[in-house]
Formats: sequence, structure tokens, C-alpha cells
Amino acid sequence: MDLVTADDVRAAATRIDGLVVRTPLTAGPGTGPGFCLKPESLQPTGAFKLRGATNAVALLDADRRERGVVTHSSGNHGLALATAARAQGVACTVVVPEGAPEVKVERIRAAGARVELVPVEERLTRARQLEQEQGLQLVPPFDDPAVIAGQGTVGLEILEQSPEVETVVVPVGGGGLASGVATAARTVHPGRVRVVGVEPELAGDAAESLRLGRRVTWPAERTGRTMADGVRTGLSDLTFAHLEARLEGIVTVTEDEIAHAVTALARGSRLVAEPSGALAAAAVLSGRVADDPERPGSTVAVVSGGNVDPALFARLVATG
Amino acid sequence: MDLVTADDVRAAATRIDGLVVRTPLTAGPGTGPGFCLKPESLQPTGAFKLRGATNAVALLDADRRERGVVTHSSGNHGLALATAARAQGVACTVVVPEGAPEVKVERIRAAGARVELVPVEERLTRARQLEQEQGLQLVPPFDDPAVIAGQGTVGLEILEQSPEVETVVVPVGGGGLASGVATAARTVHPGRVRVVGVEPELAGDAAESLRLGRRVTWPAERTGRTMADGVRTGLSDLTFAHLEARLEGIVTVTEDEIAHAVTALARGSRLVAEPSGALAAAAVLSGRVADDPERPGSTVAVVSGGNVDPALFARLVATG
Repeated sequence: MDLVTADDVRAAATRIDGLVVRTPLTAGPGTGPGFCLKPESLQPTGAFKLRGATNAVALLDADRRERGVVTHSSGNHGLALATAARAQGVACTVVVPEGAPEVKVERIRAAGARVELVPVEERLTRARQLEQEQGLQLVPPFDDPAVIAGQGTVGLEILEQSPEVETVVVPVGGGGLASGVATAARTVHPGRVRVVGVEPELAGDAAESLRLGRRVTWPAERTGRTMADGVRTGLSDLTFAHLEARLEGIVTVTEDEIAHAVTALARGSRLVAEPSGALAAAAVLSGRVADDPERPGSTVAVVSGGNVDPALFARLVATG
Repeated sequence: MDLVTADDVRAAATRIDGLVVRTPLTAGPGTGPGFCLKPESLQPTGAFKLRGATNAVALLDADRRERGVVTHSSGNHGLALATAARAQGVACTVVVPEGAPEVKVERIRAAGARVELVPVEERLTRARQLEQEQGLQLVPPFDDPAVIAGQGTVGLEILEQSPEVETVVVPVGGGGLASGVATAARTVHPGRVRVVGVEPELAGDAAESLRLGRRVTWPAERTGRTMADGVRTGLSDLTFAHLEARLEGIVTVTEDEIAHAVTALARGSRLVAEPSGALAAAAVLSGRVADDPERPGSTVAVVSGGNVDPALFARLVATG
């Protein structure tokens, strides 16, 4: 299987320059200068997903650009693709399961996409149907080299912003971000920068997959128990191959550790993070990933997103 | 009176490079791409004050560098000076009024400063005494050309990051940030970029001063009623002179508008802002400063700080 290369990530960085925010490195909560954050929650859509979607849209050929793109995610990727498409003058359809939160559907519509509501089990089928019948380009949330290369620009920027970095910590859901960042980090500084993934214990399918050496999936009723709703999904063959080849390893964190990290990021680093977005910080704050407090910028945790329910967020900040 | 020049601001930018975060421009909450934010809440101390303090410390002569610096602010400036001094290997004393919140005192101590507790009315006297008796350099929170030049780097970055900017909106307390930004903006693009200040109605002393053409101060029991505790202070002669010469004007916002802006920044832009830090956004969101939703980056509001009481913040996010 062909893996994404560092050159792919570098090309993506050039392609999406000016269309996404170059997020800064900021201080981690409460520890020494060794622990920094990469707040992707500051992208206009509130998550890193805008990078991969923007790269995928920029790579369309003329015919697809004319016809448009489609995806089947009502979450951060759906909003990202709608936003990326509009910015580049491309039509976008987002297939959304009936019963999805109205606020999410509204944000996708406000970003200029056409929304199609279907029964949940028909989501992917309908997206593929639109691809075949109308010639739309299906842009999946992570199982796609262009998307992985785009997410990898997070890693490229970290290497530029903190030349002393030793450890980059990223959440793992479908594995697109971790695949891209591990590609960027490993190839630019071979062997010097390690990338560590983080999952909730309650959705530790990628950790188990790496341990077993083969991709396993956990049922939705099992992963549905974590508050980190952005990472309940499993890997694809493509992302599993990237993680197996390039990731240092995956640690898991408890729900309490995730909740504490959301609180700490708000109180100590003035960031609004969603639970999935706080996973990497949770791994550092809980000591599951060691940081060196004396070496400035040596450990960087990606805060991958900030689209959190306000009531949940307020409760975590108040009670932390 | 000699005013700070654009060259002073440019020199400050070079001096503090690498010692402060180059904050990005990010999307404002809920409106079009015309409204952007400059989130200074992402500085390691949680506020723009680190810029002015860092510049002032960098400008010390060898003798003062040896002896150290002193200030009399227990708020964002005190923490900023402690942090700036430690980063440059300079001793720092912060004179703090008895009864100041323990959490603030602890943060200043944790940043490596010596804290001296005195009765509130003796603060400035004691700081001046330390200046004269021990040869420490007194670095005031705003009434100082080096501090103003440092704060001005916020404006310089905005001009670089958004060449299309037409309006920069900044909170006004002591006036250091507004003086610096107005200096940067006016001189780099003469006449094209206007800088508008924002105060709470309940602490509208600077607006009244500009209207009357002379500096007036409001009593503490009057300004103490605003939740925007960072801007309860009045101008100095030096900052008044800058604002009179260079600011387009000052608008005032209500407490409800400030509270709404804190909520909107958290929900819509994923930023934790303190009430003072949300003033500029409040002016745009309430329509008191017009923005052009069609021109990307044409209006930039500085989110000046994010050191907010967690209980207050959680209440605003939950009820907004």
C-alpha cells in the first residue's frame, strides 16, 4: 500500500497556505515551558479538519471542480468540507443522518453546503450514489491520501515553530491526523521526533489494533460511551498502515482525565476544547506521556478541536 | 510631550521576537469573514501585557539589569513583568496590596518574582521607594514609552497579517495598548487604518476625556461597578496625549454587551476571554463599531486577555 510521503505533506502546506490559520504554539496549562499546545480549535471551523478538506478540494481536477464534492459526516469534517469548498468556489453536498443535532446541520448550511438528510444506515450509500450518478468527488473524513497529507501540515508547522520538539501528541479517531503528523515528523527529522497517539480507554480500538498487529474495530455501542465523540470511529486500512509504520505508540486516557484536561485547557491556557480535542493534553497532564519541563517546546500536544456543547463545557470549567 | 513613534514600535517588535507569542488572526464569532480577532489571551501570561513588559526589560541598561525591576500591579501587568524579567534573567519585585486574591499572588510568585504585600494605599509609594533605595527600575503598567511601544506590536502584527484591515478595535483602560496600536496603525498606513477604543459605559473616563479635550478621572467607586476589572483605571497624561492625537474615537458598551461578548467568543470562536478582553468584540457584535462582512479581515478586534474567574466564565457560557 502506498503511504503518504513528506513531500505530499509539504505540497499540501503550500496548497492550503492562506486558506487555513497557521495556529501558534501556546503554553500548556500549569506545567513548565516544556509543554506546549498547538490549538487547532482556532481554525475558523473549530477543528484541524479544515486542513485536509482544503487540500482535497485544491487537488480536484477541472471536471470534479465543476461538479462538486460530497461527504457523509455531520461533524467537524462535514463543516470543514463545506467551508473549504465554498472558499474555492466548489459546490458541496453533505449527507447527514436524520436526527443529527440541528445546530450542526445549520452550521453546515450556513457554510454554503447543500444538506441531504437520510436514514443513518444509508449515509455512505447515498454519498457513493451521488459520486457515481452526479460525478461528485467523495471526500471521506480520513480514509484518503489528500486528507491525510493536509492534516500532516499540523506536524510540519510544529517542526518549524519548535525546532527543539521531541514528542508530538495527537488524538486518534479515524487516524487521519495521526497518520499525517507522523508522516511529517518522522521524515523531516528522521528518528528524532516521536509522535504518540491518544485514545479514550472507552474507544481504544486503534491501540488494540497496533498491539495485535491487525486492524480491529469496536462496536458503536462500546465506543459510544466515551464523551470524546470525535474519536469514536475506527481506523481504515490506509490509516492503520500509516500508524503501524510511523507512530511511536498509542496511550489511552480515562474519562476523568479527559474531563480534567478540558478544564485545565480553559483555566490554564484559555482555550475552549471539545473532549476529543483535549485527549493529547490529557495524556501529558496525567503523566501517561512524559514531558521534560526544562526543555522549552519539547512536548507539543495538538488541541484538535473546540466544538463542544456549551452546557457540558460550562459544567467542566465550573467544577474542575 | 514626546510621543512614541512607529520606529519605536518596530524596534520593540524586533526586541521581543521569540519572547512572546505571535498570535494569529482568527475568525470572529458568527458574523462574516470581515470580522477577525487577535487573541492576545493566548500569550503565556494570558494577556497582551507581556509585550510591553518584555520590551521594557529588554531596554534596561546594564546597571538596572543587574539590580532588577519593580512594579505595583497585582493584575496582568504584574504577572507579565515577573515573566518577562525571568525570561531575561532579571530580578523582579511586585508590590501587591494586602487582600489581593491569593491565586493572583501565587501566579506571580510561581513566575519567579519576589512579592511584597503592603496596604493598598502604600503600593505606589513603596514601589518608588524600592526604585530610589535599591536602584530598581520601576516599570509601570502603561505610563511608559517602552511599555506603549511594546503593546504597539499587536498593531504591527495585525497590519502584517491582514493587509486589507480598515478598523482595529482595542479596549481602553490605562491606554497603553490603544496608544501603541494607534501609533503602529496610523504611521504604517497613514490615514487608511482607523483605531477605535472601547470602554465599558461604567468606566467611560477616557471617552469623556477625549470629548472634553482634557484628561478626567472617575473615582474608583464609580468604575468599580463594571465587570471589566482590567479597565477600571484611568489614562495618564502620556497615554491621553497619544489617544488624542491618534485614536479615531472611543465607543462605550454596556455590561450586557460585555457579558454577551464573553459568551460569543467562547461559543463561536473557542476563546476564553476575560470581560475586559471581550470589550472590543462587544463593540463590533453590538454594532457600535460597524464592520464590513464582505471584506475579509477588514475589522480586527483585539481580545486583550483571558484571565477570568472560572465560575463567572462558566456562568456566562452556560446562560448566554
